[in-house]
Amino acid sequence: MKITSIRQGVVPIMSAIANAYIDFSKMTASVVAVTVESGDGRKATGYGFNSNGRYAQPGLLTERFIPRLEEAGELPAHEDGGFDPTPAWTAMMKNEKPGGHGDRSVAVGVLDMALWDAAAKLAGLPLWKLLSNRFNGGRHDATAWVYAAGGYYHPGKDVDGLVEEMKRYLGQGYSVVKMKIGGSPGMPLREALLLDLSRIEAVLKLLDGDGSRLCVDVNGRFGLHAALSYGAAIQNFGLRWYEEPLDPLDYATHATLAEHYQPPLATGENLFSMLDARNLIRHGGLRPDRDILQFDPALSYGLVEYLRTLTMLREHGWSPRRCVPHGGHQFALNIATGLGLGGNESYPEVFAPFGGFASGVPVVDSRVAMPDVPGIGFEVKNDLWAVLKDL
Amino acid sequence: MKITSIRQGVVPIMSAIANAYIDFSKMTASVVAVTVESGDGRKATGYGFNSNGRYAQPGLLTERFIPRLEEAGELPAHEDGGFDPTPAWTAMMKNEKPGGHGDRSVAVGVLDMALWDAAAKLAGLPLWKLLSNRFNGGRHDATAWVYAAGGYYHPGKDVDGLVEEMKRYLGQGYSVVKMKIGGSPGMPLREALLLDLSRIEAVLKLLDGDGSRLCVDVNGRFGLHAALSYGAAIQNFGLRWYEEPLDPLDYATHATLAEHYQPPLATGENLFSMLDARNLIRHGGLRPDRDILQFDPALSYGLVEYLRTLTMLREHGWSPRRCVPHGGHQFALNIATGLGLGGNESYPEVFAPFGGFASGVPVVDSRVAMPDVPGIGFEVKNDLWAVLKDL
Repeated sequence: MKITSIRQGVVPIMSAIANAYIDFSKMTASVVAVTVESGDGRKATGYGFNSNGRYAQPGLLTERFIPRLEEAGELPAHEDGGFDPTPAWTAMMKNEKPGGHGDRSVAVGVLDMALWDAAAKLAGLPLWKLLSNRFNGGRHDATAWVYAAGGYYHPGKDVDGLVEEMKRYLGQGYSVVKMKIGGSPGMPLREALLLDLSRIEAVLKLLDGDGSRLCVDVNGRFGLHAALSYGAAIQNFGLRWYEEPLDPLDYATHATLAEHYQPPLATGENLFSMLDARNLIRHGGLRPDRDILQFDPALSYGLVEYLRTLTMLREHGWSPRRCVPHGGHQFALNIATGLGLGGNESYPEVFAPFGGFASGVPVVDSRVAMPDVPGIGFEVKNDLWAVLKDL
Repeated sequence: MKITSIRQGVVPIMSAIANAYIDFSKMTASVVAVTVESGDGRKATGYGFNSNGRYAQPGLLTERFIPRLEEAGELPAHEDGGFDPTPAWTAMMKNEKPGGHGDRSVAVGVLDMALWDAAAKLAGLPLWKLLSNRFNGGRHDATAWVYAAGGYYHPGKDVDGLVEEMKRYLGQGYSVVKMKIGGSPGMPLREALLLDLSRIEAVLKLLDGDGSRLCVDVNGRFGLHAALSYGAAIQNFGLRWYEEPLDPLDYATHATLAEHYQPPLATGENLFSMLDARNLIRHGGLRPDRDILQFDPALSYGLVEYLRTLTMLREHGWSPRRCVPHGGHQFALNIATGLGLGGNESYPEVFAPFGGFASGVPVVDSRVAMPDVPGIGFEVKNDLWAVLKDL
């Protein structure tokens, strides 16, 4: 099988939102279309895009990764009728030195996503089914657990606005929601904490006081002191998880926090390779019986690398069920269903059109079913397909 | 003070060489020119480029970092007549999330270098002198220790060719040289080790058997078994250092190796932020009395970030004398002299025109003097200036 065409574009992710770290109004995403011909008359076009939080990569794609992929040569056919994207991945990484897993991991991830979409289409299988067959002994989940990530800071948004937003998510079928905290830069810690506690308590009231239905997300902004102060204040709420309290690379401080904060922690969306993920596992003091790992396959060199991460996790005693990827995209949703992850993020109101599910598929009690169409399923997500089909 | 113009270009680094990891024939470098006006009639243009081993960043520069730098606004004047590049650095990193310190660290490093060059020119000082005044209490070294990095693999290059190359470096005034090892992919370990031992012994003979005059460099290719096998075989040579035996992010394995290999280890050229460097220090088991840290300021967000790294090192009991940056460029040479590092890499025969010193300045007993001209000194390095002046 051979790649016969690679096209790329850049689209804005217009969102008047901010988390504790960045504002998203200037965010962009790369989109690519990769056509593969089987040599026996079959042909499929796979699509890929990058997940939110990191930028489009038109430069790196043009300068390094598309030219190398064009030179990748024969893609090895798989007995399911598709092909194995691994050698193409290796070709893309030719002449890249070790270390420095940042923007290039996004560029490679975009192309990797398109390769898996094309492979599944050539196999005539939904990606979740292809993954289940190839890597999970045919096991898969009938539905994926999803939660509604939101609760961003908007200018003029108050506690009532936050509660209204969460109410909408419940109305859409989500039973677990996530809100941002720690996003009041410059405010003294004590004051910021009191403000966030009033926001948390208002949402908890909406959730009948059930902390297991609420996640809070700091987006990496705290140091140890703030992380411990917030931790002590929220410890008794029994929250689902306390997300990215610290810089993602500050493993030692994670380990200290985990000694003092008993309920679940979640992190990993800003670690972009198996080696970085392994350092979190080795040095971060996280607990395989409760903590959540949010590595986003789209931002971190795609599924070829994510499979290595899952293998590494198993070797360290972590179940794939502890993984709930960042990003809210259908790619991770297929991986979650096919490989038995713990679920997937979802953004009901932001990052359109990349987040979300196949059109018309309902969320029921925070679970969503996967469509039975070949590939990742972009063609049955109307708003996203409207963007991709022009490539 | 204000930035009034930013220009960029891309130039090839043509080199028919390879190390254990990549071949350099397709390597490129970004070059930039940043003009700053003082507001009182003074004006200077600073130049920057990226160090070898990572690619030019025209995409990231155009898409994100140059536009943000253009919007940086007023640069705060410094009493020495220059300005402080820190707020401009912060402006460049606006809306960048934590983690993922890869290609963007190169793009920011290129612009940071140009800002420091412009600041020193406006101050009428060589950069080493400006750094000495601002950050080192006026102390500086009269000369910098340098060593000749080479010994790459070329098609058809044999042991005699390697010894001839090293002989040329000695003739140029270097007393310490570095050669690549571990670069025979696919060869069984035992055979590769025997081949490399014969190469090492031939060079040691040229150096009168003095191991302290020879460094060996694996470029991150080994796993623990190969690193230990080589380590056991070379331990008694008393080599100056054993460089990058392992993947730069595999801290735990570094710690194991350091328990078994007594002489100095060196690593760090593929870690691109203070936080990554701190993880090496925290988890890598390196020894502050002997090991060498090779973080390259040009590849890792520039000098603003490198100053944070030096502070972190001091807090962990490491002297700046343990730092010998990768890259062989005049920027690191100024930093080494002005801030009292252990020295700097040098590439007498490769990576032209970016490596090397001011034209006509001799290397004497592996030390080199800095020219007394404002800025980094690009204008008195003829081959490099021929490239930069057209920007």
